[in-house]
Amino acid sequence: MSLLERTEKSLADHFDALVPPQTPPRLAAAMRHAVFSNGARVRPQLCTAVALACGDDAPALSDAMGSAIEIMHAASLVHDDMPAFDNADTRRGQPTVHKAFGEPLALLTGDALIVLAYQVLAHAGAQHPQRLGAVIRNLSAGVGVPSGIVAGQAWECEARADLSEYQRAKTGALFVAATCGGALAAGADPQPWTPLGAFLGEAYQVADDIRDVAGQAQAMGKPVGQDALHGRPSAAQSLGLAGAVAYFQQLMDQAVDSIPACGARELLSQVVRRESERLVPTSMCEAVGQPYRHLQSAPLTSPQGSGHAVA
Amino acid sequence: MSLLERTEKSLADHFDALVPPQTPPRLAAAMRHAVFSNGARVRPQLCTAVALACGDDAPALSDAMGSAIEIMHAASLVHDDMPAFDNADTRRGQPTVHKAFGEPLALLTGDALIVLAYQVLAHAGAQHPQRLGAVIRNLSAGVGVPSGIVAGQAWECEARADLSEYQRAKTGALFVAATCGGALAAGADPQPWTPLGAFLGEAYQVADDIRDVAGQAQAMGKPVGQDALHGRPSAAQSLGLAGAVAYFQQLMDQAVDSIPACGARELLSQVVRRESERLVPTSMCEAVGQPYRHLQSAPLTSPQGSGHAVA
Repeated sequence: MSLLERTEKSLADHFDALVPPQTPPRLAAAMRHAVFSNGARVRPQLCTAVALACGDDAPALSDAMGSAIEIMHAASLVHDDMPAFDNADTRRGQPTVHKAFGEPLALLTGDALIVLAYQVLAHAGAQHPQRLGAVIRNLSAGVGVPSGIVAGQAWECEARADLSEYQRAKTGALFVAATCGGALAAGADPQPWTPLGAFLGEAYQVADDIRDVAGQAQAMGKPVGQDALHGRPSAAQSLGLAGAVAYFQQLMDQAVDSIPACGARELLSQVVRRESERLVPTSMCEAVGQPYRHLQSAPLTSPQGSGHAVA
Repeated sequence: MSLLERTEKSLADHFDALVPPQTPPRLAAAMRHAVFSNGARVRPQLCTAVALACGDDAPALSDAMGSAIEIMHAASLVHDDMPAFDNADTRRGQPTVHKAFGEPLALLTGDALIVLAYQVLAHAGAQHPQRLGAVIRNLSAGVGVPSGIVAGQAWECEARADLSEYQRAKTGALFVAATCGGALAAGADPQPWTPLGAFLGEAYQVADDIRDVAGQAQAMGKPVGQDALHGRPSAAQSLGLAGAVAYFQQLMDQAVDSIPACGARELLSQVVRRESERLVPTSMCEAVGQPYRHLQSAPLTSPQGSGHAVA
């Protein structure tokens, strides 16, 4: 089973088990709309790939960790799209939840999904009580205060914010939770996997800035020009489009370089390369005059990985 | 230390530990505004009283359970007060969070508080990994799908809803989570404590209906007449004010009767009686021509309690 198939199966199984027929039907439909909407599933695939790199001795728990992170991501998109924030009508080419189901249900859908993410972990964690606390703290760190994605959004409501702290929290935190969560679910030390999540998170943020400016509305399935509209900091605006693409490529190289030496290094590099092409396609690099370079395979032992025992 | 002092100390300690200075300052202030705003703290006191009834062999975990439930309650009030729902300007005599901090931060504050509730449990659960899964499932059942308070709110967005299921979920679920959570934190069977939470939850909903109609705006610190305004089902409207007060008193009697035989029965009865007077004061009973009866002490062995071994 591919990483993507495993991710989709876990999400579908958990959803069926934890959102039963007695759920208010429109709430259940809105939750399903948010979670099953052609997402790229990069975070859970990353989580699973790291779990495999660490031996994946508790696959039900690593699947649950990946699903919980993806469900949190979906929850954040539902709330971010609401009129209080981006006021977006579409997401991945579909109506946003508040457009399809109304604002009250969109608010409740986000709330119910945050809780569902923990229900997924608690469900799978019953077989691994000694790991449950760590995976729950990891998920919470990626989402809550002081430095998760909710805190990242909240920096937009402050008069003054540290730009790198803002970006690290807004996007990076959930990527770090994905890589570290894969390690924790497999009973491994999460620390060596922090840089991979951090580089990918920053690259993702830069790619989002690039696409927001480059106006790939159709490819993104959501409105463009939102950063300038909302006065948000943007790499594409501060570095220029070509500079931002070059910076994106550098971050992706660093992500690959940071992968600890392990048997799943090639699998992880593939995930990163595929994500790189999806986020900033070759055609877009060429359009801004930045020659596309395929990411180089990094040496088998990276600074972060040397000496760390992952099988 | 009284139940209330223990509750306040636990909330303050957890807040200080888990909302550190690097949290975005306005988000931290909004979270504090929501949690420390003269709430009656009935749910966490109930949780602690049940934990005491069950031996309270892990007081840090029962404190965490009570705090987590109160934080979830605060989160639900923040989101319920928003324009998409009640559009309330005041709560407990203070500006609501969206009035004081704006809608974007109110949305994020609710989200951050939901996550914080789990952070509190995971924090305390590190010492009791074998109980962590159960307390997390219990909290989630009180809040999420299919029958927690978020689902209860969502029934308001359905064309058709079962009235008792709606009321049970909207208010009762978090009271049941409080009583059952106290038992689970102490390693006891939660089932005998379900009726106490369910009766109190329904009584609380009836009291809210009564006060909404009776117009005790000042006592509630929030707008009145909201149920009729929003077309919500209301006991005070279907039974009349005097009938609703009589029904409230009956539910409170049933709550006391349901308390299992245990050493903390008198303490729990006191909590229920004090809450009864707070919710529907003697003066209000007299005003609607319903003679106020002090709640009777129930026999020491109730149907639910007989044979259940709680110390």
